[in-house]
Amino acid sequence: MLKNCLIGQSGGPTAVINASLKGVIDVAKESKYFNNIYGMRYGIQGLLNGQVVDLSQKSSQELRLLKYTPSSVLGTSRYKIVDYNDNDEDYVKLFKLLNELKIGFLFYIGGNDSMDTVYKLNRYAKEKGIDIKIIGIPKTVDNDLLETDHCPGYGSASKYIATSVMEIARDSRVYDIKNVHIVEVMGRESGWLAASSMLASNDKLSTPDYIYVPEIEFSINKFIKDIEKKMKEQKAVVVVVSEGIKDKHNNYISVGKSTTHDHFGHKKLGGAAPMLAPFIKGNLCDRVKAIKLDVMQRAAAHCVSKRDAEEAYILGVKAAEAAIEGKTGTMISIKRLSNNPYKVEYIETPVGNIANKVKVLPNKYIEEDKNQINEKYKDYVLPLIKGEVNICYKDGLPQYAELDCLNNEILINS
Amino acid sequence: MLKNCLIGQSGGPTAVINASLKGVIDVAKESKYFNNIYGMRYGIQGLLNGQVVDLSQKSSQELRLLKYTPSSVLGTSRYKIVDYNDNDEDYVKLFKLLNELKIGFLFYIGGNDSMDTVYKLNRYAKEKGIDIKIIGIPKTVDNDLLETDHCPGYGSASKYIATSVMEIARDSRVYDIKNVHIVEVMGRESGWLAASSMLASNDKLSTPDYIYVPEIEFSINKFIKDIEKKMKEQKAVVVVVSEGIKDKHNNYISVGKSTTHDHFGHKKLGGAAPMLAPFIKGNLCDRVKAIKLDVMQRAAAHCVSKRDAEEAYILGVKAAEAAIEGKTGTMISIKRLSNNPYKVEYIETPVGNIANKVKVLPNKYIEEDKNQINEKYKDYVLPLIKGEVNICYKDGLPQYAELDCLNNEILINS
Repeated sequence: MLKNCLIGQSGGPTAVINASLKGVIDVAKESKYFNNIYGMRYGIQGLLNGQVVDLSQKSSQELRLLKYTPSSVLGTSRYKIVDYNDNDEDYVKLFKLLNELKIGFLFYIGGNDSMDTVYKLNRYAKEKGIDIKIIGIPKTVDNDLLETDHCPGYGSASKYIATSVMEIARDSRVYDIKNVHIVEVMGRESGWLAASSMLASNDKLSTPDYIYVPEIEFSINKFIKDIEKKMKEQKAVVVVVSEGIKDKHNNYISVGKSTTHDHFGHKKLGGAAPMLAPFIKGNLCDRVKAIKLDVMQRAAAHCVSKRDAEEAYILGVKAAEAAIEGKTGTMISIKRLSNNPYKVEYIETPVGNIANKVKVLPNKYIEEDKNQINEKYKDYVLPLIKGEVNICYKDGLPQYAELDCLNNEILINS
Repeated sequence: MLKNCLIGQSGGPTAVINASLKGVIDVAKESKYFNNIYGMRYGIQGLLNGQVVDLSQKSSQELRLLKYTPSSVLGTSRYKIVDYNDNDEDYVKLFKLLNELKIGFLFYIGGNDSMDTVYKLNRYAKEKGIDIKIIGIPKTVDNDLLETDHCPGYGSASKYIATSVMEIARDSRVYDIKNVHIVEVMGRESGWLAASSMLASNDKLSTPDYIYVPEIEFSINKFIKDIEKKMKEQKAVVVVVSEGIKDKHNNYISVGKSTTHDHFGHKKLGGAAPMLAPFIKGNLCDRVKAIKLDVMQRAAAHCVSKRDAEEAYILGVKAAEAAIEGKTGTMISIKRLSNNPYKVEYIETPVGNIANKVKVLPNKYIEEDKNQINEKYKDYVLPLIKGEVNICYKDGLPQYAELDCLNNEILINS
């Protein structure tokens, strides 16, 4: 008898995480290996509450827009399951449910925390002799997963950040007065997203003037001196900072919230830009703006990278194919073969190599002064933001898939 | 002998203010009525310093990208000239320079403060018998100019705001936890920009849940009650607030800066969203985000409304044509003839009717509860955001005109 498949999304959303979902669904619909296609609402946490929906009957019309719809349409969570040797309560509950639903294939789209979930579930299933294929599909705007050249979601976020910094920089130069714009982007542990802002430069306009990443110890004194120096050359200064920049004591440069933690034990951040602005304002100049690109940088599907969306989709397809081939406990990764022409291949990596680990921005991409990113990085990132998508517009606005009604379609709700 | 023309930009930039500039230049280049085409750097303030550049020799290649380039490429200012009856120093200096440059036609692209400048210069010229045609071209994302159906720049800003709110709303619904997103948009005196966020709704997703505009007295208690009520129905609540919302004592709801003023005597604002967030956080829910769309809403040329850009361009053309016909002291306005099909005509309005005045959001567009915008407004705004532009992309990023080198080309610098 054919088994059913179950797909979940986990961690922060990206502009293309639904493209991966669509990749799995498309293969599952076409192949003869899966019976029903189920989705878990709100990741593993929703699954624990029995929040499962049937995606099998969704029309191609409903799924058509999925590829370019931002957010995680299935919902997501940051719930961390403990090791089953410490407490197997969640595992017993989950696998009972998976058995009831006749799940033979489980796909989990997420980052390094989510791969930890894949790793643990797979290890448990193996130990208990449960026949289920569990495959991880990478996603994260942070681009910080090991064992993959890059992560789906990063290209689109980079495209949005670079575009926005181009526009902010032009806006900053219109007045004939000294001003500083501090643009804060995501990146708690790594400077990948901040680095992407270097793309805003061209041969006539150099911007941002400085980029500060968490990989480099941050000094407020050095920051002030950097800006002071630049203001001798020009009136408008634009800097980009990662939300995760830290001082020599390993404390975040951030106002508020730095002592609270999310469910994974990560420190929740207030803001680096609002923290830094007062050091400049009134001292070096009067016009200082602290701008956060906030959730827009991971949600701006209207500015999606075509290559990023394509790769996210293919990763979903490859994951489904790997499951059919009987693989389990692996994540599908991207291996770059060449830059020019850009060529990649999709490989399988044991999730244990990825779970809970962080790939930071390599030193080779950071300039000697430690406040700027070099051309080597540009060669790396440029292929990832390439291509624009003609997304569907209606009445002047993008059309996105609306699967939120999913909450009314939950099969089992314990 | 043919006279020269001089074009200036003033006030805050928009995504399409350069389209109006291109409209004037295109007519000036083709017609036989103008000799050289000059631009003032940094508006009237730059002109007072003799900062004038020659645009006559710019190639069509250089000007090609101008239509969809954000920011004010000539630079801008918020300098307010005093009445010449009080002090004619600026006037004597300006008209001496205009005479030296053989300026017969002056175009000033700006908002209500800029129209004050047009009005005063024109009155002075008339009184002194100086033969110069001075024409105003409207622009402002705020949409608050009298005597015109709407203002160029507003449609594109609205399109960006509605798109971003659509994306933020989807992002806000991915976690199965209570959360509130407070999105702050521009609008010191009027709620036009905040109102545009109502476009983010469609028949399946209603968002934002509330819209608060400066036209309605703001009560923090009512705000908390509104959110409390909505959170009984749903987990994720999205509200949009104008930066200019005020309490019953006419004080801005804003952290910081509310006591400082800009050059026009306007109060400079800190932030309404950061002020409101702490009233919700910890009380009604733990996850509260204060998001400011900041300068991106006026600079996002990558998300420009095709109709808005077209109209901005035509206003530049019409202004040049009016000057050729001998008109002076007028602003070109848009008069809407019908909604469906959308039809407008361009008319001339004495700048005195517009200078220093503000058109607020009419009561007829605000719902009875005073925290939402109605369908009548939708009929008004929908035509303004229509159409997408295939802007030029290179290596994954939009190409914008680079006229910043203008600073190296200043003719006279006193």
